[in-house]
Amino acid sequence: MLAERAALIESAIDRLLPPVSGGEARLLDAMRYATLGGGKRFRGFLSTEVAALFGAAGEGALRVAASVEMLHAYSLVHDDLPAMDDDDLRRGQPSTHKKFDEATAILAGDALQTEAFAILADPATHPDPEARIALVAALADASGAPGMVGGQMIDMQGEGRALALPEVERLHALKTGRLIRYAAEAGAILGRASPADRDAIAQYGRDLGAAFQVADDVLDATETAEQLGKTAGKDAEAGKSTFVALLGIDGARAEAERLATRATGFLEGFGAGASGLRALARYVVERRN
Amino acid sequence: MLAERAALIESAIDRLLPPVSGGEARLLDAMRYATLGGGKRFRGFLSTEVAALFGAAGEGALRVAASVEMLHAYSLVHDDLPAMDDDDLRRGQPSTHKKFDEATAILAGDALQTEAFAILADPATHPDPEARIALVAALADASGAPGMVGGQMIDMQGEGRALALPEVERLHALKTGRLIRYAAEAGAILGRASPADRDAIAQYGRDLGAAFQVADDVLDATETAEQLGKTAGKDAEAGKSTFVALLGIDGARAEAERLATRATGFLEGFGAGASGLRALARYVVERRN
Repeated sequence: MLAERAALIESAIDRLLPPVSGGEARLLDAMRYATLGGGKRFRGFLSTEVAALFGAAGEGALRVAASVEMLHAYSLVHDDLPAMDDDDLRRGQPSTHKKFDEATAILAGDALQTEAFAILADPATHPDPEARIALVAALADASGAPGMVGGQMIDMQGEGRALALPEVERLHALKTGRLIRYAAEAGAILGRASPADRDAIAQYGRDLGAAFQVADDVLDATETAEQLGKTAGKDAEAGKSTFVALLGIDGARAEAERLATRATGFLEGFGAGASGLRALARYVVERRN
Repeated sequence: MLAERAALIESAIDRLLPPVSGGEARLLDAMRYATLGGGKRFRGFLSTEVAALFGAAGEGALRVAASVEMLHAYSLVHDDLPAMDDDDLRRGQPSTHKKFDEATAILAGDALQTEAFAILADPATHPDPEARIALVAALADASGAPGMVGGQMIDMQGEGRALALPEVERLHALKTGRLIRYAAEAGAILGRASPADRDAIAQYGRDLGAAFQVADDVLDATETAEQLGKTAGKDAEAGKSTFVALLGIDGARAEAERLATRATGFLEGFGAGASGLRALARYVVERRN
């Protein structure tokens, strides 16, 4: 299910990115390199699945999915830079600044962020400008200083000093949680869900994102680089406080389970249409990469 | 006139940026450092002046002005990075990565871009979602791969090799011209100008932006670093093709004049209300920093 949807989202990204041409061809090439060629498309899946729940499957949902994947890709390109996490490997391939160079990677990340907003603003995403501007506002809120980028700043500053559990929870709620919650909410916005339904989906997304990150820490501590397709054990090595360091491996596994179960609880009113979202919560705690 | 408006825009930026607090305080501090404390606010002035021409002076115009200045500031922060133009000085002060560090500068630029879109998406900018989404679409178009960032990529690749005049013109039309044109168009969007009026303003903005860049090359070749508040002669030193290298100083001055005059020509239908925009075109070619 995940693989089939990933292929659809991949193809939407391919269609939506500008073709490689002109004096800026290297930039466009790097944008494609950073976004295409794999990935689970977890965030995009989430958007399309919630959109379908509210009767909004189709081109608009694929565009929203492509947009959130571009935003996510931009964050990975910048996070991998030497001045940031200094990671040479991403999905088993050279990270963008290794494949190209630092300047190109910085610019490709910048332009991917812009492109994510450009896609949402286009009438092809939703005929109603009110829905499009709500998507733009929600993405900006999730990804900027009060969200993802704020979380990345806290993460950079946390290197080499011990953070307490509430600090680590807030860090990840911002750094990865907000964008995952947005991916869920975006589907509800696209489907013009009622405020109560949108709120339930937002809470599901928040807990799903938290479960995702705790499970990620467990994977980082237990799986090999080959399995993960990225450098393993990096966070511990960089002296970052992880959920595994704070809770132990068994404790972190139990916490991921608790969060995934709580996430599913918010889906109770949605019946059989939400079975894909329930399966996603299971997948998040059971995945191996 | 420029100084008075600049103070209003400065105060709008100050109000609109998030307050410095939390674990991400360093990020918020760097965002403020990069955007506040001076600058001519040329792009913001242009937006407010066009908005006023179409009867849309006020809070919305100041928000649009603050937004375009944040977008511009993000581009400067990233352009100054060691992997890009490697500039230690900006407006006579340490550039953001010198004042803070590279990671913080990358993140501050990222978050300033996001904030520029967040401000446009907010109902306080314009009550009509159609106007707000048009602003978002226009800013994304002007600042991403088909605009500013694409131009910066061409600029990086042009170092050390000779570009012909049409290539240099396209480079700058993208790198600086598109955002200046947007700043003008944004005022017209805010004032719900007719398509014909918006088009005239866009053409004025395009030529004004071109004149601005040619005049900038002349300043870079003729003024001291002290006068400019930034490193002088850097482009020539980096082996970049400039208008001065291609046209000579007198030729470049004449070209800037020609472009400014052509820009003003597009204002003919607007009468006395456009006197500020005419003065701005004069200012662009007569300024000393």
